[in-house]
Amino acid sequence: MVANLLYEGKAKRLFSTEQDGVLRVAYKDDATALNGERKESFASKGRLNNEITSRIFTYLNDAGIKSHFVEQISDTEQLVRSVEIIPLEVVVRNVIAGSLAKRLGVPEGTPTKQPIVEFYYKEDALNDPFINDAHVLYLEAATEDEIAILKASALAVNDALKEMFAKMNITLIDFKLEFGRDKDGNILLADEISPDTCRLWDRDTNAKLDKDVFRRNIGNLTAVYEEVLKRLKEVV
Amino acid sequence: MVANLLYEGKAKRLFSTEQDGVLRVAYKDDATALNGERKESFASKGRLNNEITSRIFTYLNDAGIKSHFVEQISDTEQLVRSVEIIPLEVVVRNVIAGSLAKRLGVPEGTPTKQPIVEFYYKEDALNDPFINDAHVLYLEAATEDEIAILKASALAVNDALKEMFAKMNITLIDFKLEFGRDKDGNILLADEISPDTCRLWDRDTNAKLDKDVFRRNIGNLTAVYEEVLKRLKEVV
Repeated sequence: MVANLLYEGKAKRLFSTEQDGVLRVAYKDDATALNGERKESFASKGRLNNEITSRIFTYLNDAGIKSHFVEQISDTEQLVRSVEIIPLEVVVRNVIAGSLAKRLGVPEGTPTKQPIVEFYYKEDALNDPFINDAHVLYLEAATEDEIAILKASALAVNDALKEMFAKMNITLIDFKLEFGRDKDGNILLADEISPDTCRLWDRDTNAKLDKDVFRRNIGNLTAVYEEVLKRLKEVV
Repeated sequence: MVANLLYEGKAKRLFSTEQDGVLRVAYKDDATALNGERKESFASKGRLNNEITSRIFTYLNDAGIKSHFVEQISDTEQLVRSVEIIPLEVVVRNVIAGSLAKRLGVPEGTPTKQPIVEFYYKEDALNDPFINDAHVLYLEAATEDEIAILKASALAVNDALKEMFAKMNITLIDFKLEFGRDKDGNILLADEISPDTCRLWDRDTNAKLDKDVFRRNIGNLTAVYEEVLKRLKEVV
């Protein structure tokens, strides 16, 4: 039985398995920024993100959030249910940072009263543009009902994650989710949740514990991701 | 009694009047593009936009759409009710063009099945960024109820305008509206509706009958605006 490579992304490879409807994800050691223009490899990054994502998806499953995650099967691999990925990046923001700080002219680090949910259209050739609900419908990326589910799910994930990260003495600034449809049309949380996809700031020092250390060249990516995993192991 | 200049924008000046709650708008001959970086003056432009806006707001009033418009009082001037302007540009799109064509990677001229409504934050220093409903709430630019009113009003204006322009053998591609609150908090359509704020294409030739002839240097602005006014006079 050959394990076929189905898809290779910037940070992961996806393979078929012998089990119908189940895929194997292999995390890579690559880090990219600027939509892939900048790329570097970090030993252990694949292992760290696989470990972190596996623990977080297990925690979210216990919190009642349905996802594609089945189980971690090795340092760098996990099994997931096969889903049709919805071509949207669903971003939730608790504190203004990054692109939104520039867009709104608000200083990075300004808290929001209510979490802000945003959609970005997953299309590398367009640099994943920010879009609104009407654009989602126009693009037929999701239906009106699905948009409501995506927003509610993203906010439920936010509630669960904020609580978990608070116990790790980390502020969850913002994060990106992806969702997929299973063969029955159910919407499941998919992709990964890791320091690649979250902004995480130490609550005492505001030190960045996420991919911004790579994007902005301000620290040692591997050491920072190890720190996140160490704190995560203490709470989940 | 002195008429005080209250505000000078790119295309209009706003003066107080002797009548409480009523202001005088004087349309200028200036055309600007690139958020004011490029500026030129066209004789008659102020008259044309004042005439066109006055006719269109009268037509919309007859169609049941409440606005700040009171009456045209000279070639280049009109009286309007004083409102607190909501700092949003409300854009409605029937056909993909301009910035949205680039954002979504869709050829200019592609029709939408449903009109697309977008919000842009009116803030020159930020180049009027595109934002979503959650950003509107964060910025306290409008409440959730007001967002619903703005969208419904924009779509009602679209229905009325599409019908009117169709009689003029013009396709209404997209347009920008602004709204304000009167002293009782009622939301009124404000600003102008003219070839400065609409994309208008001749139905037979797709020739542009709007400010894109200036933005893109592809024709005589005054002649084009005269043509729009001529056709408008035939139908309203």
